[in-house]
Amino acid sequence: MEANRIYNFNPGPATLPLPVLKEAQAEFLNFHESGMSILEISHRAKEYAAMQAQAKADIKELMGLGDDYEVLFMTGGASTQFAFLPLNFASKEHPGSYVLSGSFAEKAYKEAEHLGIGEIVASSKEGGYRHIPTQEELKIDKDAAYVHLCYNNTIYGTEYHYIPDTQGVPLFADMSSDMLSRPLDFQKFDFIYAGVQKNLGPAGVTLVVAKKSFLEKSPESLPTMFKYETFFKKDSLYNTPPAFNIYMVGKVAAWIKAEGGLAEMEKRNKKKAARLYGVIDASNGFYRGHAEKDSRSFMNVTFRLPSEELEKTFVAEALAKGLSGVKGHRSVGGMRASIYNAMTYEGVDALACFMEAFEKAHA
Amino acid sequence: MEANRIYNFNPGPATLPLPVLKEAQAEFLNFHESGMSILEISHRAKEYAAMQAQAKADIKELMGLGDDYEVLFMTGGASTQFAFLPLNFASKEHPGSYVLSGSFAEKAYKEAEHLGIGEIVASSKEGGYRHIPTQEELKIDKDAAYVHLCYNNTIYGTEYHYIPDTQGVPLFADMSSDMLSRPLDFQKFDFIYAGVQKNLGPAGVTLVVAKKSFLEKSPESLPTMFKYETFFKKDSLYNTPPAFNIYMVGKVAAWIKAEGGLAEMEKRNKKKAARLYGVIDASNGFYRGHAEKDSRSFMNVTFRLPSEELEKTFVAEALAKGLSGVKGHRSVGGMRASIYNAMTYEGVDALACFMEAFEKAHA
Repeated sequence: MEANRIYNFNPGPATLPLPVLKEAQAEFLNFHESGMSILEISHRAKEYAAMQAQAKADIKELMGLGDDYEVLFMTGGASTQFAFLPLNFASKEHPGSYVLSGSFAEKAYKEAEHLGIGEIVASSKEGGYRHIPTQEELKIDKDAAYVHLCYNNTIYGTEYHYIPDTQGVPLFADMSSDMLSRPLDFQKFDFIYAGVQKNLGPAGVTLVVAKKSFLEKSPESLPTMFKYETFFKKDSLYNTPPAFNIYMVGKVAAWIKAEGGLAEMEKRNKKKAARLYGVIDASNGFYRGHAEKDSRSFMNVTFRLPSEELEKTFVAEALAKGLSGVKGHRSVGGMRASIYNAMTYEGVDALACFMEAFEKAHA
Repeated sequence: MEANRIYNFNPGPATLPLPVLKEAQAEFLNFHESGMSILEISHRAKEYAAMQAQAKADIKELMGLGDDYEVLFMTGGASTQFAFLPLNFASKEHPGSYVLSGSFAEKAYKEAEHLGIGEIVASSKEGGYRHIPTQEELKIDKDAAYVHLCYNNTIYGTEYHYIPDTQGVPLFADMSSDMLSRPLDFQKFDFIYAGVQKNLGPAGVTLVVAKKSFLEKSPESLPTMFKYETFFKKDSLYNTPPAFNIYMVGKVAAWIKAEGGLAEMEKRNKKKAARLYGVIDASNGFYRGHAEKDSRSFMNVTFRLPSEELEKTFVAEALAKGLSGVKGHRSVGGMRASIYNAMTYEGVDALACFMEAFEKAHA
């Protein structure tokens, strides 16, 4: 570990690649020889334009997407998208279909339901969101405007391991917590979005990657800033974008490319996840994973200990060893280790070793 | 001028105080001894909470506001507020009243008009937005939900030099381009907001300072993220906020306090503006100010030259001397020097000297 740095297992905002942070720090007062900080440069400047274009190109390249897709940089987080999606695409005749797989999937549904244009087509709420609804559990409504998934469920530690067949209904996904963490056949998705503060950069920008056909025309009745059309037609520059946040996302995308792309991220993420799930599975029930095995997330590893007392001790002792942010979400309890792209194997191994020692001491 | 830095007269994003940038750079990898970057720390961490609370307290202290006001950190820029305001406060019976004083004032009105709940109560559009509508020009509608002003008009270079008497109708103001630039009797305003990328920090956060009575209850029909109530009740932490951007705003507010507060900012800003307007007024018509004298902005100094040819030469020669961003907005033409809080007198004087020399060479 770098001096003065800690292993940060927080669910988001989350750890970022150290080389990226150092690069940003080095050019903090003078962006691309412009004589200004990236915080100060005009969003109409050629240096800014080149940076944003490169970020978009890198993201599309990493995802293997072509000219029929566009990248938008928006704000307000996934929570704002939860409202924008039904407002832009759903109606009484063509409601938004939602698969409930966790808290954020539920929140997305609730915004559509509040507008009277949402429906539930599958749910794993019963039993505490321990699994991802299967293809068989999905009741497709062929009149729906879209089927909406939350691809990774940060709080419960579950993740899709298949891409649902929606029988031609457009497939929408919130990928806030596993965006660019592994290769997928992204062309099967019509609309993907992500708050970037987990795998992609600092909080403050929402990444949208969608088929152009969903972006080029929005309902006339909506306010300017609620229309995807506004962002699409003006290349996300209708008004001043969160320039620094986009710049950091661009740097992270470039870092992913340089490290070997999504295939390499997947290799690392699977290895990290396997190390932690290995400790859980070998613990004879001392550690109890929340997610069912076939729905386990590569990004958020959730588990309980034999008692809440021990869980408190675990959090405190972990922190003393420089392992921060392992406390689980209050709705699940226990522990959660978030091991996004930027978390090193070294960090995960340090946590795994601590878990093994803790088990030995307390089992 | 610092080595490798330039004088940045851009209208926003704009120059930031160099000591603030250096401070942020120095602690970029380790925020308040947390072992993490401010980009990586949880928005639920105590270090984050302390930072955000201090930022709010400093802003309220600078504005001389008490417990009946609250500070919110939102996203989407002023353009998103243009929609949120009528959605939250106006109706057919109680429309939003708008004073048109420039492009952004017009855009704000258009969002309310699009919803069928906006009206114009004064306008200086005729003649090209050269003056701020006077108290006499204002036709107050006593049934209005609010009177909306754009307090400084970045594009046209005009600024209010009085606070309108709205006869009890709540007073709302977009202060994106002059927020915290001078002391005002802020208690006369019910709702103030600002995209921060001019006087307060990097683009990506929208500052709202409003009477709590306008924030504590919002229409039930609105989506969660469109309600001020959501931000008010959760202290701007309903979802992940743009943490880094808020942190920078906090640092800028602390810098303003340390420099002597709004009274000192006003002194400096008036001195800077006087230097540039002085050159214009002494130029025998070589430089022609766009704004009428009694409406001149302390933040954005707009002027034309005798020909577009000369204007092009001016921009090019200025840039060669390290004076960047002086080209005016296309809707006004000519030049615009934006001289927000962070622009030094040294920078303004360099521009003024250049203007004097340019006039001598070309008059």
